[in-house]
Amino acid sequence: MAERTKFILDEKDLPTAWYNIQPDLPEPLPPYRHPATKEPTRLPPPLFVEEIDNQEHNTKDQWIEIPEEVMNVYRSWRPTTLFRAHRLEKKLDTPAKIFYKYEGTSQAGSHKPNTAVAQAYYNKKAGIKRLTTETGAGQWGSALSLGCNFFDIELKVYMVKVSFEQKPYRRILMKAWGANCIPSPSQDTKIGRKILEDDPECPGSLGIAIGEACEEAFANDDTRYSLGSVLNHVLLHNTINGLETKKLMTEYADAYPDIIVGCVGGGSNAAGMFLPFVKDKIDGSKPDLRIICAEPTSCPTLTKGPLTWDYGDVAGMAPITFMNTLGHNFIPPPVHAGGLRYHGMAPIISHLLKLGFVEAAAVPQLETFEAGITFARTEGILSAPETTHALRVGINEALKCRETGEAKTILIAHSGHGHFDLSAYDAYLSDKLDNYEYPEGKVKEALDHLPSIG
Amino acid sequence: MAERTKFILDEKDLPTAWYNIQPDLPEPLPPYRHPATKEPTRLPPPLFVEEIDNQEHNTKDQWIEIPEEVMNVYRSWRPTTLFRAHRLEKKLDTPAKIFYKYEGTSQAGSHKPNTAVAQAYYNKKAGIKRLTTETGAGQWGSALSLGCNFFDIELKVYMVKVSFEQKPYRRILMKAWGANCIPSPSQDTKIGRKILEDDPECPGSLGIAIGEACEEAFANDDTRYSLGSVLNHVLLHNTINGLETKKLMTEYADAYPDIIVGCVGGGSNAAGMFLPFVKDKIDGSKPDLRIICAEPTSCPTLTKGPLTWDYGDVAGMAPITFMNTLGHNFIPPPVHAGGLRYHGMAPIISHLLKLGFVEAAAVPQLETFEAGITFARTEGILSAPETTHALRVGINEALKCRETGEAKTILIAHSGHGHFDLSAYDAYLSDKLDNYEYPEGKVKEALDHLPSIG
Repeated sequence: MAERTKFILDEKDLPTAWYNIQPDLPEPLPPYRHPATKEPTRLPPPLFVEEIDNQEHNTKDQWIEIPEEVMNVYRSWRPTTLFRAHRLEKKLDTPAKIFYKYEGTSQAGSHKPNTAVAQAYYNKKAGIKRLTTETGAGQWGSALSLGCNFFDIELKVYMVKVSFEQKPYRRILMKAWGANCIPSPSQDTKIGRKILEDDPECPGSLGIAIGEACEEAFANDDTRYSLGSVLNHVLLHNTINGLETKKLMTEYADAYPDIIVGCVGGGSNAAGMFLPFVKDKIDGSKPDLRIICAEPTSCPTLTKGPLTWDYGDVAGMAPITFMNTLGHNFIPPPVHAGGLRYHGMAPIISHLLKLGFVEAAAVPQLETFEAGITFARTEGILSAPETTHALRVGINEALKCRETGEAKTILIAHSGHGHFDLSAYDAYLSDKLDNYEYPEGKVKEALDHLPSIG
Repeated sequence: MAERTKFILDEKDLPTAWYNIQPDLPEPLPPYRHPATKEPTRLPPPLFVEEIDNQEHNTKDQWIEIPEEVMNVYRSWRPTTLFRAHRLEKKLDTPAKIFYKYEGTSQAGSHKPNTAVAQAYYNKKAGIKRLTTETGAGQWGSALSLGCNFFDIELKVYMVKVSFEQKPYRRILMKAWGANCIPSPSQDTKIGRKILEDDPECPGSLGIAIGEACEEAFANDDTRYSLGSVLNHVLLHNTINGLETKKLMTEYADAYPDIIVGCVGGGSNAAGMFLPFVKDKIDGSKPDLRIICAEPTSCPTLTKGPLTWDYGDVAGMAPITFMNTLGHNFIPPPVHAGGLRYHGMAPIISHLLKLGFVEAAAVPQLETFEAGITFARTEGILSAPETTHALRVGINEALKCRETGEAKTILIAHSGHGHFDLSAYDAYLSDKLDNYEYPEGKVKEALDHLPSIG
């Protein structure tokens, strides 16, 4: 009998609470600042319901119970499977043991429903009728459509117009789940109308879409706004994955990791995996554990961006956040990993980087697709372009083990499949993909426009 | 604690042998006939390796051991999950208990790798260097690409040219897994060149693609041909799913089905599910179990086609088979369920229909998409258009239970996800979909051209 390749929790072992790292942090997170007054602030109530704001600022409770209604939906795809990548190891000829936890079996194909479902539930519970959100390529928009569908909440998704037109697949998915997805800029908001008046052909941007989604939530009492990454409560909901994985690695596979790798855009996937493990670094029980956040060379928030105060959105409507940032005006090159094209970073991850509990590595696009193909041809799974960043860094670490002969245990947070990203793979396999260098000048320029906080 | 929604086998309970129904059939299957001589024949050796031919004609062994090499690959996605469709039941307001076994978590997104992996293995074992096959929309081509990739066999896929151009997604998937997928008709074969000489703009057809794939396998000693449905060994390999499900239904969920529904094109998905259950009808222990094969109204092989001798392919190169058929010249309307657009049916299913062990139901395209949307909005999964035929029939049965008050247990064989079929859903949701009536005249014409067997 060969070594096992697959580990999945017994249903009775499913985590029943999310892990909140805030009480365990050696120093607290700096508070958000109000975008206008620059004073310390909570999440703005016209945008978020109270229970979500409470989770965002909970520095007291290590464990937040997962409501039974959320668990019932989680159970429609959770627990997810932990794989031992025997074929990949063999191909790399490495003594390293590579594991990956695969989140692509959610109905939306990624980790994003972990928070989408929870957010939809808390809004429903608070009597909210409708959510708004923005989406670029559509991964978040489709995940939230799924979540809202389960809890019978209306959803309006402002999708960046150029993606709405060029990438119809996730938009159709949203429609199938009953959401109303429209191209942004739109005629539905003041911001949208103003922009279209100035430029009827405007292709839109994530910043504009956030502005439209927030404006609509601000303007309607029964409507709230939802964000798919960055914020503390979003990372919190994703810890369900890290908790499952920690139990599997320690109790089922008997393989506590030496290295954990996850890709970071806003940070919810990586943090969802590593937060329950960071706990062991903070309490000193696993001082040698390395946690690596993988990001694109072209949008290197953690490896090149300073830790400072910046707006979370281009329009400057969201709270000002203390985080690693490339400047809220920075528009990253059009790499296919759309989910990693964000100028900022989750404040929790920025904080942990500063405290030395996590590290970061940037990898160029072509190398990430090479890793994606290697993975597809060994493990069979076609990965999302975002995920291939983690694969690249994980493979690099495994190749180092080949040099040193060390049999390290590497755990990769596999955030989802690439079924809606096949044209990106086609471009790569046809040698039509650009590598995109670090746009140093554009970042410098964007960093000149940070808000000033006393 | 709510009733469980999910059941998955312990790894130790995984089936270790496929179920071969042939020894249990009350009367044997008629043998294949040679397309030229019309005499009884085995599968032609230039096309298939001996071990596969032996499985095709094995009337002795009820159980065929699954080789450890195949099991190792199966374990990369198997066992798959059995779901109780609580949300769908509630939506339908039915006392019926609806279960579905979901095969969409294979790396190719469908049940097809169950046989693709096995076929690749047996060919590799026999020293074969290369396989050829044909594909329409690409579901089978991509599954076999995955299988060949795992066993390091070259694969050449002849893909119907119009699909190659219009549906690039699964073609890119094949490329990512290292297969060589080319549009058919091609310059690589005599048949292809002849057709292109007559008509350089020929859009291709499945019949032409089969012809090209067979010609190449015939012409090269190190090359064999592979088929993704219809044949006995293909159904055999798919019984892994039915065996898993039977164990789950009886030992885990305590719910032996009253009704089993699966969609049928060539028949491998439905038969893979129901064959281990048919056993209980044949031996008399479950006389009331109903097994329903769901097919499109536009290609109603089982509900309208006679049971007779016909070619399996349009070109008349494949063995002549005793089966339900609409005539090998019949070209079905362009419904989106491409995998159900086959003129014939697995001989095993045709035989079981004749013997009264299974029944058939035909459903029109619009009703199947309506069922697909209902399913997406309750269970969350976006289903392949093929699968929605089974969903439609399953839902119809559940609605009958609402009328009668019976709490029947309905089991649906869910063959895969619809991530590559979103444009079909878009057409449905935009009211641009045709329903396609039964093309009676075209079938009559096609049935005029059956081969005559004495």
